Formats: sequence, C-alpha cells, structure tokens
Amino acid sequence: MEGAGGLSTSLRRGTLEFCVLALMERGDQYGTELVRQLGAERNLAISEGTIYPLLSRLRRSGWVETTWRESPSGPPRRYYSLTPSGSSVLQHFRREWAVFRDTVDRIVGTDSP
Amino acid sequence: MEGAGGLSTSLRRGTLEFCVLALMERGDQYGTELVRQLGAERNLAISEGTIYPLLSRLRRSGWVETTWRESPSGPPRRYYSLTPSGSSVLQHFRREWAVFRDTVDRIVGTDSP
Repeated sequence: MEGAGGLSTSLRRGTLEFCVLALMERGDQYGTELVRQLGAERNLAISEGTIYPLLSRLRRSGWVETTWRESPSGPPRRYYSLTPSGSSVLQHFRREWAVFRDTVDRIVGTDSP
Repeated sequence: MEGAGGLSTSLRRGTLEFCVLALMERGDQYGTELVRQLGAERNLAISEGTIYPLLSRLRRSGWVETTWRESPSGPPRRYYSLTPSGSSVLQHFRREWAVFRDTVDRIVGTDSP
C-alpha cells in the first residue's frame, strides 16, 4: 500500500534501471552526468548515493561495462556503456513496458469518467 | 534488480491497487468479478488469495466500503464500492501516472533507435 502521496516507490524502482540503460544507449555515460539527466525528470531524480550502487549492480549483471577516460577538467572519469546483453535486456523491457503502460491506461484511464 | 524475465513485480505492485479502485469507479464490484476482470490483462492477473488481502487494505485505508447483497445464485456477495476518499486517491494516481508514463516513454522510448 503506497498511500495517496506522490508516485509510488514501486513504480520508480521498477523502471529506474531501465531508464539508466536507455540513457547509455544514446551514448556512453558517466555517473554525475546520469544523475543530471535523471534529475531533469521529477519522477526519476536520484542522488549519487543511489546511482553508483545501481551502476554496480548493472555491471555485475553484465549489462554495462566501464572504461576510464581523460576528462577535459579534473581527474579521469569512469564511463559506462551498454553491453550486448544490456541492450537485449533493454529491448525486452521496452516491449514489456509498452504492454504494461497500455494496460494501465486502459483500466485507470487518464481522465475522469 | 528485476532481471530480464517478465515485467517487474515492482511495476505491478505499484499499480494494482489503483487498477482495482478504477474498476470500482465503473460500478460496485465483488471479489471474484475483480479477479476475472484483472485476469483478462496478462500483466495484472491475480488470484483470490491476493485480491482479498488487497481489498482489506483498501478498506482499512478508508478507500472502499462494503455491502452485502443477494446473489441471483448462491450465497450473498460482498460488494466493494469506492468512497469519496478512494475516489480522490484514484484521481491523484491518475495524474501522477500520466506524468510517470510520459517520462518513461520519453527516456526508454518504444522503438529501437
């Protein structure tokens, strides 16, 4: 039971990792840049304390891999990129998401009856 | 971490109770009829062992109320209907859902790049 306040943590938790994979699909990412991009979406805003454990899990799952690269300013950055396995997982989620979204839209609707 | 198989339990958990409230908005419902309607949606199929605890929680939250009614066949049925508070919660979720759905659509997309 999530209560009436705010969007449920469950929904957020069920999509965040796939949103992160989707951002990597657009190009390799480093942690603080991911935090910045997700922070632009009020439903997905996360802290660095959340993103790094999430990225570690994605890496242990074999869905992302990392490389160190020079930064134009400051120390080298660890970049995260999608592996073929991560890409496949993302495609799978994308299909499942479309079905799930349409189901909830159909039942819950978006307008008052 | 939900893994690659099936839609995440988190997503389902975050929406199921609101789908149940939305079905009640169309008219009073009894338990087995709710199970039947949700079962028509592959992402939301639940058993009677799941629906009754969920309905109890909704009742304790004050979002639904119950009445016993005669059944055309068999014993009386307990009908569940939306309270004004439940209706308000549903409207709130409906707005939050629309924003969340659009966010995930925008980031994850529905087609391969």
